[in-house]
Amino acid sequence: MVIVMAPEASADEVEAIVSIVESAGGEAFVSRGVSRTIIGLVGDIDRFQTLGLRGKPGVAEVLRVSVPFKLVSRENHPTRSVVSVAGVPIGPDTLTLIAGPCAVETPQQTLAAARMAQQAGASLLRGGAYKPRTSPYAFQGLGEDGLRILADVRETTGMPIVTEVVDPNDVPVVARYADMLQVGTRNMQNFALLQAVGGCGKPVMLKRGMNATIEEWLMAAEYIAQRGNLDIVLCERGIRTFEKATRNTLDISAVPVAQGLTHLPVIVDPSHSGGRRELVLPLSRAAMAVGADGLIIDVHPAPEQALCDGPQALVADDLAELGRAVREFPPLVGRHLAAGAGVPA
Amino acid sequence: MVIVMAPEASADEVEAIVSIVESAGGEAFVSRGVSRTIIGLVGDIDRFQTLGLRGKPGVAEVLRVSVPFKLVSRENHPTRSVVSVAGVPIGPDTLTLIAGPCAVETPQQTLAAARMAQQAGASLLRGGAYKPRTSPYAFQGLGEDGLRILADVRETTGMPIVTEVVDPNDVPVVARYADMLQVGTRNMQNFALLQAVGGCGKPVMLKRGMNATIEEWLMAAEYIAQRGNLDIVLCERGIRTFEKATRNTLDISAVPVAQGLTHLPVIVDPSHSGGRRELVLPLSRAAMAVGADGLIIDVHPAPEQALCDGPQALVADDLAELGRAVREFPPLVGRHLAAGAGVPA
Amino acid sequence: MVIVMAPEASADEVEAIVSIVESAGGEAFVSRGVSRTIIGLVGDIDRFQTLGLRGKPGVAEVLRVSVPFKLVSRENHPTRSVVSVAGVPIGPDTLTLIAGPCAVETPQQTLAAARMAQQAGASLLRGGAYKPRTSPYAFQGLGEDGLRILADVRETTGMPIVTEVVDPNDVPVVARYADMLQVGTRNMQNFALLQAVGGCGKPVMLKRGMNATIEEWLMAAEYIAQRGNLDIVLCERGIRTFEKATRNTLDISAVPVAQGLTHLPVIVDPSHSGGRRELVLPLSRAAMAVGADGLIIDVHPAPEQALCDGPQALVADDLAELGRAVREFPPLVGRHLAAGAGVPA
Amino acid sequence: MVIVMAPEASADEVEAIVSIVESAGGEAFVSRGVSRTIIGLVGDIDRFQTLGLRGKPGVAEVLRVSVPFKLVSRENHPTRSVVSVAGVPIGPDTLTLIAGPCAVETPQQTLAAARMAQQAGASLLRGGAYKPRTSPYAFQGLGEDGLRILADVRETTGMPIVTEVVDPNDVPVVARYADMLQVGTRNMQNFALLQAVGGCGKPVMLKRGMNATIEEWLMAAEYIAQRGNLDIVLCERGIRTFEKATRNTLDISAVPVAQGLTHLPVIVDPSHSGGRRELVLPLSRAAMAVGADGLIIDVHPAPEQALCDGPQALVADDLAELGRAVREFPPLVGRHLAAGAGVPA
Repeated sequence: MVIVMAPEASADEVEAIVSIVESAGGEAFVSRGVSRTIIGLVGDIDRFQTLGLRGKPGVAEVLRVSVPFKLVSRENHPTRSVVSVAGVPIGPDTLTLIAGPCAVETPQQTLAAARMAQQAGASLLRGGAYKPRTSPYAFQGLGEDGLRILADVRETTGMPIVTEVVDPNDVPVVARYADMLQVGTRNMQNFALLQAVGGCGKPVMLKRGMNATIEEWLMAAEYIAQRGNLDIVLCERGIRTFEKATRNTLDISAVPVAQGLTHLPVIVDPSHSGGRRELVLPLSRAAMAVGADGLIIDVHPAPEQALCDGPQALVADDLAELGRAVREFPPLVGRHLAAGAGVPA
Repeated sequence: MVIVMAPEASADEVEAIVSIVESAGGEAFVSRGVSRTIIGLVGDIDRFQTLGLRGKPGVAEVLRVSVPFKLVSRENHPTRSVVSVAGVPIGPDTLTLIAGPCAVETPQQTLAAARMAQQAGASLLRGGAYKPRTSPYAFQGLGEDGLRILADVRETTGMPIVTEVVDPNDVPVVARYADMLQVGTRNMQNFALLQAVGGCGKPVMLKRGMNATIEEWLMAAEYIAQRGNLDIVLCERGIRTFEKATRNTLDISAVPVAQGLTHLPVIVDPSHSGGRRELVLPLSRAAMAVGADGLIIDVHPAPEQALCDGPQALVADDLAELGRAVREFPPLVGRHLAAGAGVPA
Repeated sequence: MVIVMAPEASADEVEAIVSIVESAGGEAFVSRGVSRTIIGLVGDIDRFQTLGLRGKPGVAEVLRVSVPFKLVSRENHPTRSVVSVAGVPIGPDTLTLIAGPCAVETPQQTLAAARMAQQAGASLLRGGAYKPRTSPYAFQGLGEDGLRILADVRETTGMPIVTEVVDPNDVPVVARYADMLQVGTRNMQNFALLQAVGGCGKPVMLKRGMNATIEEWLMAAEYIAQRGNLDIVLCERGIRTFEKATRNTLDISAVPVAQGLTHLPVIVDPSHSGGRRELVLPLSRAAMAVGADGLIIDVHPAPEQALCDGPQALVADDLAELGRAVREFPPLVGRHLAAGAGVPA
Repeated sequence: MVIVMAPEASADEVEAIVSIVESAGGEAFVSRGVSRTIIGLVGDIDRFQTLGLRGKPGVAEVLRVSVPFKLVSRENHPTRSVVSVAGVPIGPDTLTLIAGPCAVETPQQTLAAARMAQQAGASLLRGGAYKPRTSPYAFQGLGEDGLRILADVRETTGMPIVTEVVDPNDVPVVARYADMLQVGTRNMQNFALLQAVGGCGKPVMLKRGMNATIEEWLMAAEYIAQRGNLDIVLCERGIRTFEKATRNTLDISAVPVAQGLTHLPVIVDPSHSGGRRELVLPLSRAAMAVGADGLIIDVHPAPEQALCDGPQALVADDLAELGRAVREFPPLVGRHLAAGAGVPA
């Protein structure tokens, strides 16, 4: 932490800061310049933050230096982690494809989507049973019935399942069925939910809030990690900007930036960021090229009948091209497609 | 709803849309132009939205016309509502001042802040017992102990209390103590929480998500209303933009815009939007001048020791000026300061 | 300036920074902490910025402390300035109303708008003869013919005129007619234009770029000031955000923030920020309450025929209410309406 | 164009719109629904936009349907264009690498950078002689001396040159030396400059404004095209968002979106968007994978001494990796590296 004193700060005011810091167990290094004095703080930053230094007389600015997240930080854990989802790895050597329908609607639709996903190279099946919707009048998901459908399709296809949870009270039931729990963009700072999934014993996929900075995203992951769950995969899914030509603006730079700050895997959702089918393939290629550890993609056997986000789902015709891309691009960045049931290694 | 067909759409494709709409119980009006055909839809829009029209062959765009919220809309309820919080009105004829500490820390601090608030003209006391914090290492609030402190201070001062709830499971306990429940900016789309407060039997203050459009904010209110609770007060508290000179950018225009769209009261939080003490008074004056139905302001007897958001809390010296402003500005826009215990009418 | 070294930086790397700074004539103060070393720099910051310190081995971050603008900064000039436009003051004791048509169309329309403006209390007339338009197919203004119309209307009404210039080559002709030149939002970083108006000998109104930070806005003013012209008035006119309910988001907080950083006057354009007639009055009241030094407002005798921005122009019926507001609000913040021809002091 | 009438609009108000449109030479199709009436307009939209329809009684919304740009639109010109820069193609079959120093500083530095660029596969040399800088105290470029250096380096290396122009008055001199003129992000809506380069007889690279929508970017290109110059290359270089971990947020989706709307080539600047050296390679790979028609990259022989944007320039060590990437990625999306002097086809 660095404290910048105001130009007019007195020697007493500087002294006062030093003694506050020292009596809180820290060390303070004073640099007196021509127009300003700078105080460098060493010690327990969390403790310093409770001292109200910014409000003290003579203080112009308080600059934080160290990163505020610890368990998920790469500073103390330089090797990038591999998260295993029922045996399927997500990490630095692979490109893991997760695909499936946005919402579970029927057993037939879910199985058909899973087969499409598998054919394209997906080793994990996504599908929503609990849907967070902007409108209370929109389809809210099938609930536990949807989880049962997913479990049946896992039985048939061998694909482990990833599914969203939106209410802390639903965490136990979702964790009973799912191989990985997803926390959605609107819930990235739902701290009750983060703590609940932190104790659920299953890997968690944490989507970036559409208005969250990368730092806030990692802080949200820290909430989960604090409960003892370090099997976290981060998912960039587009941020909200002034541009309305796409549903959200995919922040492709967030992938290498986050990978530099955390040891956790970082994947990309090209379906929700673009919001348009014709963007899914180009954005998937970009995500693989930038070094993402995985992709999560909407597929649907009949998008025009989808109850949720049909316009962005890939259809059968797109899947051959996706299948080729997930095999051709990863080797150029030192990776290979993650193997799974029905997906040749 | 209006459907814009692509220039190259065929007559059959137009016909297909018409029959889909009609078989869903709606009417479709076709206007054939030189380069494009437009289809106007009349009927049940929620039903239309499940038809996947955007993905049909030949469709270029689907434009929604009606507002997607109903219970909170002013279209069907042109008179602006008054929400009563334990007898204190929030509505079109008054300016209601809500003030208190960001976080409840001790009985002494809470009572001192309440007295400061009351002196400035506040008729409702705010104070957080459950705090949503970006960092898991920051102070998280006193929980039920904090609620008890608030109740004691209400007993002493006569001020009804407004306090935040962050977990659906805490709604019953918070509703037992509080006169009004607050849903914070990070939880604006925490649908489980919205539904829980919708059934709690107490008025709710719904803060705007820092990345939420005005429409999404009203949709979130609709979630609460749908559970039968129409005692909702909306609170503008700043949105996230590229400008970093302030903590958030107070969207002052949102007040008249939202008041035009909904019958619910709209208040402003100048403390969290600016994030700096010296902005609180100017922004409070702006909020009253623009026509806000109330203000919610952080005050603290000793901000430099505050466990939360000290830099933005008003102190004793500011309160005389605030007290003058809340009496002088409302009459210029046809209002008066809402009376309360210890506040002359 | 403060340099934060990386945790793994060696003593030699720290030493290297110190000698670079010293050989550039500066002083460097080293604070060695447990996990990091901090170096405080004192001396010529502009010189330091050419040293490429951010790219040196071992450097993690370079933090700038002083403000990068000097002539317009309030640090060296604590008293707020008054800019006189042909005798009409814009400054801390007054509220100056500037009004007129967005675009000059005909002598009749311009005179009618000027009379409307005057009646409402305007002491300066605005009107565009050179219009920057997003589309090359939109009306681009009357050019010098428009300037002549403005000059005639000034003759008739006694109102000094404010008009936009978009091309550095037009600065001489515009300065010959106008009492104040306006640089528009799209040109805030058109440095050739800033330098041209800096040498024109007339006061300048500098609109904030719709994507500019407050700091960049002040830097743009510094470009004008550097050419010897300190008669600059800043104009907040809304920034671009994700919210689309208004044309732009009026950043009302920018008024007190900018007034704290610069001695120059800061006014508000409520017409272009809101983009809707019904928002102009509420936003005008908010701007006066927050402490703006003036308002610039579109008025038009017949907005439905306006060639530019008709939907946001005030009409005759609104003007009585505006006239009342500009007389009632300023006294509450220690100001009075600036007098002008036809406007009682 | 589609006009949505307010629910309470009368039959006379609808009739009034119809006759206004018809007397302007257009056709109006009325669809009366249960709660609203919709009017579809066919004819000259530019003419309709001057009718002030939005302000007429009973009108709730005016929705524009057709794209507002014509010459650059892909609607009338479905085949994607190839722009030739002194024989080097930029278009749908190639990936063209443009590289060089951000600013021309000395003949030696420029030649060294050109050689580095060439080695990596660049067929065009970039370098700034006129620099738009946020601060008037920053290095502003060498002007015509810089252009002469560029011309000498072209002589030596055979690389055609791309350089920025910031003042309409400088267009003739820059066009005399350069093979392609660049309009920078801050000047995207400097209409005087757009018109000047539209008449210069050389290809133009138009960078996207950091706050510009894709539609506004294409409208700015339309300004250039309107002067008869269709040799325009669009360059995505990052937009301004709330995220501050990168200098700007590279809007990677803008590449396929813009390519769908315009026949002009679209390239990417990964150096200015990320602002950090370690992001240049990942973002370059992402840009090629998403289908960009080219890359423009900062290289510098000694970035730590660069007078401008040193922290983002690639150095010698990075170039082998860039050289490999620009040869490996394009074939996966049906392209090949554009040949040039010293670059094997």
